[in-house]
Amino acid sequence: MTELSKLSAPERAALTQQLEQRYNAFKAQGLKLDMTRGKPSSEQLDLASKLTVVLAENDYKGSDGSDGRNYGGLDGLPEMKAIFADLLGAPAAQVVVGGASSLTLMHDTVVRALLHGVPGSSAPWGRGPVKFICPAPGYDRHFAICEHHGIEMLTVGLNDDGPDMAEVERLVASDPAIKGMWCVPKYSNPTGTTYSESVVKRLAAMKTAAPDFRLLWDNAYAVHDLYAEGDKLANVLTACAEAGNADRALVFASTSKISFAGAGVAALASSPANIADVKRHSSIQTIGPDKLNQLRHVRFFKDYAGVLQHMTRHAELLRPKFEAVTEAFAKDLDGKGVASWTKPRGGYFISLDTLDGCASEVVRLADSAGVKLTAAGATFPRGKDPRDRNIRIAPSMPPLGQVKIAMEIVAVCVLLASLKKLGA
Amino acid sequence: MTELSKLSAPERAALTQQLEQRYNAFKAQGLKLDMTRGKPSSEQLDLASKLTVVLAENDYKGSDGSDGRNYGGLDGLPEMKAIFADLLGAPAAQVVVGGASSLTLMHDTVVRALLHGVPGSSAPWGRGPVKFICPAPGYDRHFAICEHHGIEMLTVGLNDDGPDMAEVERLVASDPAIKGMWCVPKYSNPTGTTYSESVVKRLAAMKTAAPDFRLLWDNAYAVHDLYAEGDKLANVLTACAEAGNADRALVFASTSKISFAGAGVAALASSPANIADVKRHSSIQTIGPDKLNQLRHVRFFKDYAGVLQHMTRHAELLRPKFEAVTEAFAKDLDGKGVASWTKPRGGYFISLDTLDGCASEVVRLADSAGVKLTAAGATFPRGKDPRDRNIRIAPSMPPLGQVKIAMEIVAVCVLLASLKKLGA
Repeated sequence: MTELSKLSAPERAALTQQLEQRYNAFKAQGLKLDMTRGKPSSEQLDLASKLTVVLAENDYKGSDGSDGRNYGGLDGLPEMKAIFADLLGAPAAQVVVGGASSLTLMHDTVVRALLHGVPGSSAPWGRGPVKFICPAPGYDRHFAICEHHGIEMLTVGLNDDGPDMAEVERLVASDPAIKGMWCVPKYSNPTGTTYSESVVKRLAAMKTAAPDFRLLWDNAYAVHDLYAEGDKLANVLTACAEAGNADRALVFASTSKISFAGAGVAALASSPANIADVKRHSSIQTIGPDKLNQLRHVRFFKDYAGVLQHMTRHAELLRPKFEAVTEAFAKDLDGKGVASWTKPRGGYFISLDTLDGCASEVVRLADSAGVKLTAAGATFPRGKDPRDRNIRIAPSMPPLGQVKIAMEIVAVCVLLASLKKLGA
Repeated sequence: MTELSKLSAPERAALTQQLEQRYNAFKAQGLKLDMTRGKPSSEQLDLASKLTVVLAENDYKGSDGSDGRNYGGLDGLPEMKAIFADLLGAPAAQVVVGGASSLTLMHDTVVRALLHGVPGSSAPWGRGPVKFICPAPGYDRHFAICEHHGIEMLTVGLNDDGPDMAEVERLVASDPAIKGMWCVPKYSNPTGTTYSESVVKRLAAMKTAAPDFRLLWDNAYAVHDLYAEGDKLANVLTACAEAGNADRALVFASTSKISFAGAGVAALASSPANIADVKRHSSIQTIGPDKLNQLRHVRFFKDYAGVLQHMTRHAELLRPKFEAVTEAFAKDLDGKGVASWTKPRGGYFISLDTLDGCASEVVRLADSAGVKLTAAGATFPRGKDPRDRNIRIAPSMPPLGQVKIAMEIVAVCVLLASLKKLGA
């Protein structure tokens, strides 16, 4: 393999011609492949098909005697809280189970803070300017919450062990308007990065100018390992408590990518003070969550060990797709000096970096050949990648055969865009 | 029957002694009867027991081809929207189905308006003082939303045909800080009042100083008739559109008291501009609602006619309980000049008015005799009934036999409290 930049002009022209032939051959197939979103595949959803029928007509009582068909139980059934206690890494008393969407729990946490502040606030956040630290590339829906509610986003880089901590520490120490930070600490969307123990401890212990600074810890991929030996994430709640910042972190997760996406169960965990505050707010917003769906999940998974066991079957379906992506990239892009990509050991995404200024062109070329990718820039605040180089690859949804074809096409598009950029 | 106030002092003393004997006899039974909340009874919930098992393992596709087990579908399945379109009185395109709780939809509507305003706002509501008109007696959870978010509540009286419209019109015409009004327009909580067509039209047409004034139309009891001939409620969305105020009303409902409380489906309907605004906000808050639970409801009820049919079975269970309340009150309180009560033709509550200053004492006496009632004052903003006379009776949950005993006890408590007040 030779780096493209080292080829002579005639060599580049010949290579371009050859790639265009491959590209046009794909285009002629009239493919329609969608790699845009991190949705589970039908096969993954089928793994939980018994969830739909696991409850008998007369099976509606929680272990606390509550009737799942009636009002009540603001923070969830005890047996559902027990499962999330293990998953989130907190005592059950510090868990609130609510609704089906962790995105909603995160959104509402931000909204409540804007209107009311959080424990330790001297005023509602919304009284003044509010800024959040946004490691990027990151999750577009986190950024959308900030953008929608007028929260200024401060982008920091994401290294192999987590956010650029020197930069994070510098920012939060000096600016009291920085109230929060988005974190996907395990198998981060889209890079697959897991924060190191050192990074978790620094986040927990760092001095913040705002006394009411919060880590919004979206542990979306807590149990989403692709391999038997998964990445290990330090417990942020413990780290915060040990550092004397017990109220700093709010931890979120859901079963959307464990049972059914959008029809699962979501929960959060935090310090006793934060949990009391969450309950105070949520008692105004709801009479209680859907306990029957919680009971369905409890009967199906039984306990946390059951969840982990179930996730090994997801891994069997996802692993070949992830490996197909990295193999396709390796085959066409290794040693060419025009792209790098992550090889995550879990989560839902692979992150592809092209040469600066090429990502939009790759997405455009792929689209013309029938492969829809997440829009270039989506992984950065306001949808603007300053170097226009990052592309999020979401291999979970399409069948394996389609992933293989789609990734070969993307690799060809990367080469074509790179040659154009290099002045082929 | 003689009015208590016309009895001589010795007659009152004798009557008091006699009532105290009855009261103490009840007390000696060590009863534990809970009449506090408008929860459906187990028998009512059993009517929908097939809902739990109506979906087969492979029955997860909506009529639009969407997989109910996967993400997507921000505003609900088309077939669920169709049912709510009939129930809410709006075209399906103007319906958003979301989550399980109409309380949450209402709460979030208020929160969004505080942070962002609504179509027609020149600024977020929260930038200045916000006031809501609160017909009272009314629903405590509506008032709690206002209190929690610092919205000033302006109490107006509720007449037999709805809110005191002269007062409402006077208030909204003069004060641009009045941004909203809570309405339970059919079988109002707790009086059972249904707004007349004239009231609905006046609400739709009245001049408001705030250009972005909203009616929060909580049609919680839209199909909750106790008798074959139910109250008729005029369509507020139509009335608003005809009056040139198309964006004025937001209509809410859920199946909590149709299928399962807290595990049902909630929806809202409004003008196209408001619906577009709702979707713009909710797309930030969620990827979509639980479509499987929607599908479950669609399979069970089939259509709106199926919902209406189902509600006749609820009526059969509820009607005897409502009649037991009014019969118990008639037996002990008729003609005594110390209490009046409503005889609603639907909904979940009966409203009892005692002599001024007696409600708290009645609730206290009943509690001591083992009958828990909703706290006196709960039906007024900030939990303060200025005349301390209104008590909300919630007969749905306990078995009929318990309702009868509880209401006899409450009647005795009313008489005792009244005699004390009259100076027995």
